[in-house]
Parts: sequence; C-alpha cells; structure tokens
Amino acid sequence: MSEPVHTHYRVIYGDTDQMQVVYYANYLRFAELGRNEYIRAKGLPYKEIEQRFRIHLPVVEANLRYLHSARYDDLLRIETSIKEVRRASLTFQYRVCRAADDRVLVEGHTAHACITFEGRPTRLPEEVVSRLD
Amino acid sequence: MSEPVHTHYRVIYGDTDQMQVVYYANYLRFAELGRNEYIRAKGLPYKEIEQRFRIHLPVVEANLRYLHSARYDDLLRIETSIKEVRRASLTFQYRVCRAADDRVLVEGHTAHACITFEGRPTRLPEEVVSRLD
Amino acid sequence: MSEPVHTHYRVIYGDTDQMQVVYYANYLRFAELGRNEYIRAKGLPYKEIEQRFRIHLPVVEANLRYLHSARYDDLLRIETSIKEVRRASLTFQYRVCRAADDRVLVEGHTAHACITFEGRPTRLPEEVVSRLD
Amino acid sequence: MSEPVHTHYRVIYGDTDQMQVVYYANYLRFAELGRNEYIRAKGLPYKEIEQRFRIHLPVVEANLRYLHSARYDDLLRIETSIKEVRRASLTFQYRVCRAADDRVLVEGHTAHACITFEGRPTRLPEEVVSRLD
Repeated sequence: MSEPVHTHYRVIYGDTDQMQVVYYANYLRFAELGRNEYIRAKGLPYKEIEQRFRIHLPVVEANLRYLHSARYDDLLRIETSIKEVRRASLTFQYRVCRAADDRVLVEGHTAHACITFEGRPTRLPEEVVSRLD
Repeated sequence: MSEPVHTHYRVIYGDTDQMQVVYYANYLRFAELGRNEYIRAKGLPYKEIEQRFRIHLPVVEANLRYLHSARYDDLLRIETSIKEVRRASLTFQYRVCRAADDRVLVEGHTAHACITFEGRPTRLPEEVVSRLD
Repeated sequence: MSEPVHTHYRVIYGDTDQMQVVYYANYLRFAELGRNEYIRAKGLPYKEIEQRFRIHLPVVEANLRYLHSARYDDLLRIETSIKEVRRASLTFQYRVCRAADDRVLVEGHTAHACITFEGRPTRLPEEVVSRLD
Repeated sequence: MSEPVHTHYRVIYGDTDQMQVVYYANYLRFAELGRNEYIRAKGLPYKEIEQRFRIHLPVVEANLRYLHSARYDDLLRIETSIKEVRRASLTFQYRVCRAADDRVLVEGHTAHACITFEGRPTRLPEEVVSRLD
C-alpha cells in the first residue's frame, strides 16, 4: 500500500440530508476528490493521463463502510492511497476522517479498469504504474 | 405561453438538506426533468434534437423564486411551459407544486441559447420551433 | 431473498458526467429511490417507519459493481429486494437495468443498522420485519 | 457592496455533465461554498449564526447568468460579497471565475430571508448585520 495523500474538504449544506448528516452517496464524491489529488500529487493529473495516454480509468467496483457521521461545517481529511496495481486495473483505498478529532468516519475502496477511448480494456501505461504506485 | 406539461417526481433523502427541506440547487435538476419531459411530450426528445440538428441548448440564465419548502417523500408536480421563442434562444417557465395540496413551492425560468456542436450561436431549427411552441 | 420491486427512472443530464455516462455516485441515489419504493410497496413508507417507530435505518455499508454504463435519456429499471433481515439490521439488494434491452448495468447492496432517534442501536420492530421480508 | 471574499474550488468529474462542462445546478453549490466562506471570514460561521441566534437564512430567490463554461479540473475562484442588507433579509452577490485566466464564468445573486427556527420571519440580529456588511 502506498503512502496516503491527504485532501481537505469542508462539508456544505448541499452535502447533508434531513438526518443532519452527510448523505451517503456524497462520500463517493469525496473519494473522487481524494483520488484526483492523489494522482495530482504524483505529478500526473488525471486529465493529463486521459489526454496523453488516451485512456479512461472508470470505476468497476465501489465499497464503503460508514462508521460515524460527518456533519455540516465539519472539516474532513480524505486519506487516499493505492491498494493494488495490476496489469489492466488498480484499486484506491480511502479513509474519510474528521480533522477536528481524527476520527475515521468512512473507509472504503474503488477498483478501476483501464480502457481505451473506444472502450476496450487495455494495459495500464508503464509511466502511470511507476508514478502512482 | 404554451400549455404546460406536467411531470411528477417524489423527493428522496438525497434531495434534502439538514434544514429538512429540499436543497435549493436541486430545483434546477427538477427544472431539467420538467424540460426533458416537455420536449418529449412534443414528440422530439432533447437527445434527438441534439443528434438530428447537431445543436445544444445550454442554459444562459436561471431564475428561481422559493415560496415554500418541499420535504422528503413529497410528490412534486413540475409544470413546464415555453415562455418565449426567439431566433436563436428560448425560455422555459416552471412551477414546482406539491401534488397533495397543489401549493406552488418554487417558480422560475431558464433561458437557453442555441449553439452548434462547435459552440457557435445558431438559429433554432424551424422544426424545433414549430414543435415546441 | 424477497421478490424484487421494480422502480423506473429516466436519466437526466444532471446524472451524467463528462465521460457521457451516469456518474458513479448517482447509483447510490438510484438505490435509495428503489429502496423507498420497495418499502412503500410493502405498505409502510420509510417516512412512516421513522415517525411511528421513532427509528432510523442508516446505511452502514454500500457495495456496487459497475458492469455497463447508463447514458442520458436511458430509462432505468431499479430492481430492489431484501437480501437479509437480522435482529437489528437488514440488507437491500439492487440491480439497475436498462429497460430497453434488460441489460444489468449495476448491481450491489446496502446494509442498514436500526437505531433510535437518539442514535442507539435497537431491535427492528416486528411489524417492520414482517412487512418487509 | 462589501469587499469580496475569495474561495477556491477545483472541478471534479462529479460536477460535470455529458456536454463536458459543469452542470448548471452545481453553481448553486459553489454559491453556497462562497457564502459559507464569506461568513466565516467575517468571524461568524453560519453554523454559529444558526445556533447562537436560533435563526435560519433560507434562500428565497436565486439568479445566475452563465457566460462561459467551467470544465473538469479547472480551478475556480468564487468571489462573494454582500449586495444588500435589509431589516429581515440580505442578498449575496457571486462571481465564479476561472483562476487560470481570471475569466468570469458565471455571475449571480441569492436573496435570503431571516426566519426563526419555528419558521416565522424575524429581524436580522444586529451583530449579524454589523459583522457581515
């Protein structure tokens, strides 16, 4: 497992639901946010991966465990790392923590395939592998 | 103003915020829903407009007045009509009502430009004008 | 596993992302939609469960497998069933299919705890168990 | 008009739609983000306004003009200021700019009523007025 990259995000009204906590689907947005910043921190923003290598890395599986609730105005720390890199797929691991007390609120992972712009599975470019891992 | 087309939508948890009412941005989603169904009811789904005429109708202005709150599980009736059609733009009008008591919750409009796939302003196709108006 | 309840939903622009497919987080909204309609079909809307029994059923785990993409204007059929009911938790199972060709696009489940309004774990009310299962 | 407060936000996939630009409803999320940070910069986070004065400031009108498109990975600068403060309402003004070239993408305003927790209109607390304006 790679060293995690930390991203911060403060919860807005629009993230919450009437139970006064963050709506469960929004953690997949936070996961994307963490993933984007992980990749950027490795010097290869996802936009550049798409354009230079003409590939996409769509999510093929997502799994989240909800341990505690995030609330309006909480500052969240999204800890993102790479769990596994294979020939044509990779898996990101996430922990969403409340910055104020370091409590882990949600943890999970997303698995991604590597596909061409035409939608065919393809090998992960070597430069992507060596940078991200 | 054209005869309104009615679309129904039931509020989910994911539409609400911690004030226990529908989050204000989501009414622009409901406006899109009403707009899609208005166009479909005229026999020309928006997807077909894009593909046949190779145009988009992006929103250039949106205005909403929030009169009363929608809540979780409310069945909403979105009343959509065309307010104005011009050479290269058109304006939709919306009323979002609670079906249970017909109360108007939100009203507003969105103005749309007509642009080519390359992003240049262009005339609204005659067939689109004659169908929608 | 219970008999699935079917709910239909048509994809709007607001559900898609720039890869021209439905954004992965939105399937958790569709899961909520299916869950709400499953419970309503059993004669006990979720809103009533909350109010009568003074409990919430928050999601504690979500898992989705993305097999094929949904696109703008696709009519989706969300097939929802109960996979398991335990003393103080229950699990819903989902299949999101494209209605036009019955292709399964996404499948997954969400596990829910049963908690009081004060946030303490509690037993599922017998009436809820007997209705839902 | 007060001095604007600047907030930065980087566009994620989840903000875009299939026209490869930010979906129009999401600018109301960005407006909330700017509003939250404006209020926080004045030393009185919105959460504290709610709790100390037992009031809400719900949106009663929103108006946005879409001039240019924001795209995936664009860094946005949300410039937020107070346009007007009245006895029982206030209006925020926004400009969403692309940080890379300072181009104004979207501008608009939101008007807010001041209501008690029971939902009755009430005067804006003097401390809120003097801090925000």
